[in-house]
Amino acid sequence: MKLFRYGEAGAERPGIVDDQGKLRDLSSVVTDIDAWALSPDGLATIAAADTASLPEIAGPVRYGVPVAHVPNLVCIGLNYTDHAEETNAPIPQEPILFNKHTAALCGANDPVWFPEDSTQLDWEVELAFVIGTPCWNVTEAEALNHVAGYTVLNDVSERHYQLHREGQWTKGKSHPGFAPCGPWIVTADEVGDPQELDLWLDLNGQRVQTGTTSRMIFTCAFLLSYLSRYMALQPGDIVTTGTPPGVGLGKVPPNFMKPGDVMRLGITRLGEQEQKVVPLTEDVVQAWRAAHAARRVGV
Amino acid sequence: MKLFRYGEAGAERPGIVDDQGKLRDLSSVVTDIDAWALSPDGLATIAAADTASLPEIAGPVRYGVPVAHVPNLVCIGLNYTDHAEETNAPIPQEPILFNKHTAALCGANDPVWFPEDSTQLDWEVELAFVIGTPCWNVTEAEALNHVAGYTVLNDVSERHYQLHREGQWTKGKSHPGFAPCGPWIVTADEVGDPQELDLWLDLNGQRVQTGTTSRMIFTCAFLLSYLSRYMALQPGDIVTTGTPPGVGLGKVPPNFMKPGDVMRLGITRLGEQEQKVVPLTEDVVQAWRAAHAARRVGV
Repeated sequence: MKLFRYGEAGAERPGIVDDQGKLRDLSSVVTDIDAWALSPDGLATIAAADTASLPEIAGPVRYGVPVAHVPNLVCIGLNYTDHAEETNAPIPQEPILFNKHTAALCGANDPVWFPEDSTQLDWEVELAFVIGTPCWNVTEAEALNHVAGYTVLNDVSERHYQLHREGQWTKGKSHPGFAPCGPWIVTADEVGDPQELDLWLDLNGQRVQTGTTSRMIFTCAFLLSYLSRYMALQPGDIVTTGTPPGVGLGKVPPNFMKPGDVMRLGITRLGEQEQKVVPLTEDVVQAWRAAHAARRVGV
Repeated sequence: MKLFRYGEAGAERPGIVDDQGKLRDLSSVVTDIDAWALSPDGLATIAAADTASLPEIAGPVRYGVPVAHVPNLVCIGLNYTDHAEETNAPIPQEPILFNKHTAALCGANDPVWFPEDSTQLDWEVELAFVIGTPCWNVTEAEALNHVAGYTVLNDVSERHYQLHREGQWTKGKSHPGFAPCGPWIVTADEVGDPQELDLWLDLNGQRVQTGTTSRMIFTCAFLLSYLSRYMALQPGDIVTTGTPPGVGLGKVPPNFMKPGDVMRLGITRLGEQEQKVVPLTEDVVQAWRAAHAARRVGV
């Protein structure tokens, strides 16, 4: 199944792509594509629904982040041998972990905000997986049983923030818009072997990244088992697995983005994204603040 | 006001400490101490309640994480000059940022699980603040207006994971139990100047850390303004601000914890915590997995 969230940011509704590729509203089956919808019970409930009877969604849609209330966005660094080489980093002996702040997440085709003082804005097409069941100290053999599905994630990175502004990569990875995700979660049963997927990214129509998950240093199953010894992954957590070669930092000379640039990227069976780099304005910040005020629930 | 959450892990209820120091149940006023309860409207609603008429909570309580559904746990590294010196790290020119996985959070007096292969388990008493209103690109002058309150956080760290197992500190900071938090959120109006608080930590009854927030390299207001240029902080996010000198890594020779060790720590006006280091067993992991399965809401 392909599950998505659509509509205005902050007011998304759940949806599903039917067998004919039509977009259907899933609100009568689940309240949202949240941790429960991605649990075994939730996925079984969705699978049992009569998709053809659900309302068809008219017109073009805005895709939101395909998972609601993502608890954590965990990232793997330098997980493709040739990407480590292009960035002059040694091949890691164990997975490198870091986190992106969850407010970096945005829809697959949302703008990527260009921070005023950015000088080294870069792209990274990545395979991400979504946790469906609690995952602490799991073996490599059982790890993929905890994965609800897979999606495309663009691990947008500001290299100057990341590498030249005092320690820890999080600083260059967390700005709003730095984690376009989706358009869909494709459930694990439809993806098959996650180590046989092709990835690509075009900048302004020119192919800059090509790769295959068969070239990962650490597989998804290994990564999840490894991660689960250092953190207890929660349903709805997203883990993004590193990028293949072709990032701007690795070009000779390095090539970074500016407002107006357009990224287009995709992964076999997981769909495509397109983002335009757009200057960050005070209006955007003010609108975000208003949209993210806490809402009262109950009592 | 002192706001807390009490009861069994995963089933906590909201509470408040009244003027006489009695613990009162707050369930009739707010559903939980969540992002909304910590917003200006939420805090005003709580302040308007007749605390003396709320049910008194009988007997000793287990304090839970004092904020429900913490979206992000953001950390500052090496923010006290003398702590940077004791760990042989250069004084940072800008704040060092990293994240802890949110499942590291636990109650103020919960056990700290000792991972089977841990060799360098360490303690870090820290002042943490909780975000009350969305906070993206805010000035230093307005920053503290976005803080709902303050709390104690023990940034428990496994130094071998953090420093010797391939890049990025997150790996040594994220294990369940590595972020005891609370017992309360003390609202900003009761704390006064956050740069005039004393911190201390005892290991097995011996004072090992003493410090004062007046020795921070970067103040809370500066940190929040700085952070808000790299990430859009959300209501309920917790930011912990670094530790003063006296951690095990800085002792000569280094001194790390083992099962049975007891930490006791506190900060002026913010209360005290006590944790015992306990071996991690398979029963604990299985119970956690059962407690953290996603729950269905609505439909």
